[in-house]
Amino acid sequence: MTQGKNTLVIGTGLIGTSIALGLTAHGANVFLSDIDEIALDNAIKVSGASKYTAQDISLVVVATPPASVAKIIAAATIAHPLAFITDVASVKGSIFRELEQLGIIGLDRIVGGHPMAGREVSGAIGAQGNLFLDRPWVIASTEASSAQAIAAVKELVQTLGAFPIFRTIEEHDRAVALISHTPQVVASVMAGELMEAEGSYIELAGQGIRDTIRIAGSDSALWTEILSENSKYIAQQVTQVANHLLDFASALIDGDRESVTAKLVKGNQGRERLPGKHGSSQQSTSMLVVRLDDKPGELARLFNVAAQANVNLEDVRIDHSLGQPTGLVELTVAVQSIDLLKPALEAGSFVVIS
Amino acid sequence: MTQGKNTLVIGTGLIGTSIALGLTAHGANVFLSDIDEIALDNAIKVSGASKYTAQDISLVVVATPPASVAKIIAAATIAHPLAFITDVASVKGSIFRELEQLGIIGLDRIVGGHPMAGREVSGAIGAQGNLFLDRPWVIASTEASSAQAIAAVKELVQTLGAFPIFRTIEEHDRAVALISHTPQVVASVMAGELMEAEGSYIELAGQGIRDTIRIAGSDSALWTEILSENSKYIAQQVTQVANHLLDFASALIDGDRESVTAKLVKGNQGRERLPGKHGSSQQSTSMLVVRLDDKPGELARLFNVAAQANVNLEDVRIDHSLGQPTGLVELTVAVQSIDLLKPALEAGSFVVIS
Repeated sequence: MTQGKNTLVIGTGLIGTSIALGLTAHGANVFLSDIDEIALDNAIKVSGASKYTAQDISLVVVATPPASVAKIIAAATIAHPLAFITDVASVKGSIFRELEQLGIIGLDRIVGGHPMAGREVSGAIGAQGNLFLDRPWVIASTEASSAQAIAAVKELVQTLGAFPIFRTIEEHDRAVALISHTPQVVASVMAGELMEAEGSYIELAGQGIRDTIRIAGSDSALWTEILSENSKYIAQQVTQVANHLLDFASALIDGDRESVTAKLVKGNQGRERLPGKHGSSQQSTSMLVVRLDDKPGELARLFNVAAQANVNLEDVRIDHSLGQPTGLVELTVAVQSIDLLKPALEAGSFVVIS
Repeated sequence: MTQGKNTLVIGTGLIGTSIALGLTAHGANVFLSDIDEIALDNAIKVSGASKYTAQDISLVVVATPPASVAKIIAAATIAHPLAFITDVASVKGSIFRELEQLGIIGLDRIVGGHPMAGREVSGAIGAQGNLFLDRPWVIASTEASSAQAIAAVKELVQTLGAFPIFRTIEEHDRAVALISHTPQVVASVMAGELMEAEGSYIELAGQGIRDTIRIAGSDSALWTEILSENSKYIAQQVTQVANHLLDFASALIDGDRESVTAKLVKGNQGRERLPGKHGSSQQSTSMLVVRLDDKPGELARLFNVAAQANVNLEDVRIDHSLGQPTGLVELTVAVQSIDLLKPALEAGSFVVIS
């Protein structure tokens, strides 16, 4: 951050305090405010930022719960008439619709933000200055947003080590409905089905369903907020998924194998559209399964062997089977690395299964 | 296997050949047959088993494509009047319904089997004698199955290093509809939605959707077979999921936050019913996120530090962000290990994010 500029962070939860910490670590002048005096005092201690009294502010970051964000932005346009203003809420449209209804002056100074820290766990672990390191941070502007306001938010994002992605408000909300909120709804519903199932059925569960419902562990209060703020796009997308599932069920009941195959192939193709590591395609990787004694040190030994073979692991997955003292580890590597890795592992006395 | 007993494996694909390999490695007498002479010759070379001519057989393992299994079992009851007979198809009810329709004699000698190798990739990599090591293998009996037949299949399963799980035919098929087949349908449909989405939306995809649709990469021909064989239970379960999704969409449209929260909480609870490592609950783990330079050796160094701190990793996940040269690694460990692992990693110059 440019010296002499003052940033005000309003709201001292996990995200607000982490922003304050990250900025003070880079020598920025950061002030904090919160309606909860005790939370504020704690955040000041943790972050090294100062209590806001009446300093001149050049950038306001609103990090309060989603439902309060628009009102606090509106107040900030009046209290800080020269400041650029951003927020960190994970849904943007509802905030900007409320701002329009409030009829505020100064929309040019407001740019939405969404740090995508990508965790399904909520804030209990506490603030970290490097929480945003290497994470995408969507900068969501409106037609009214000025270039200077966008630049100020971009500077904030980069100071915190995140990388900026530019989208409009609508693009952002439709995108997160598709790639974040609907998967949350589907995972929660799928996991909910297990509440109605026999225990003897669930015992057969493997890695497939485990991955499919992993994010069903998310914090229910936080996600009620998030889903409610973006309800229109999510309801559209979830309804479409439900209808496609009913189509799938019909194809199964009708014994229409051609249709079943077409739907599975469409899933194959859709998955391939996900960005891979470093933005590359996912196509060129292959998998090795290795059996491992379940004791400290075996994984380290495995990765030492991979490192000595000069093989870079794209992904690692530990696959536990019910009641077994040993584990299977799936290693995903570039296709051309398989011929290096497999003999190296076998030379290291690992059991390579496939 | 008891010496002197002869096992016949019919069908020399990945599973059949892997069974033959695993058995010959334990000194069993194994014979192979296949209508494809070239495939048979290859499997004999790979497995060290012998070509079946007209030996006395005590156990027949049918490892042919699902649609042919019942007819081949029926033929085996006549050709091998003293043998016990099992199969490896992933759906059981359709086979036993067909056997009943065929009116065969000797149902007491037949026991269904389902090795759950738990991989979404299909057989291209080739047969391995240890493919079943530490994997569950469901032994699915009917009311007609004799105790001796069940014992013979159990011996097969244990010789191959798998662990037997006993279920009825119906329990098995309902269970796999819930925990394997419906997740496949849902993942495929969810991934299919990405075919209708803007590329700019998909670029924001994170680990959540990546996990949710991972199994959408499955082989479409193989899964068309599997889903078609178990279509009744899957269609029921998929329809129920679709209806629950429509309920969720309604709750969102109605702004019924209480209902949204209840559905998310049900998902939390359902996920906790999944068996954890060694059959333990999933409750008692916690997660650390570590930043890692994306080069060979860093993962090994990380796991060395964990091993030296005497911390056992329950799970590992490499979280790639779009276009970034570094990676974030999520380590899941027992709650009480966090206080050991975090300082050890920091002492090893790793950036621990949360």
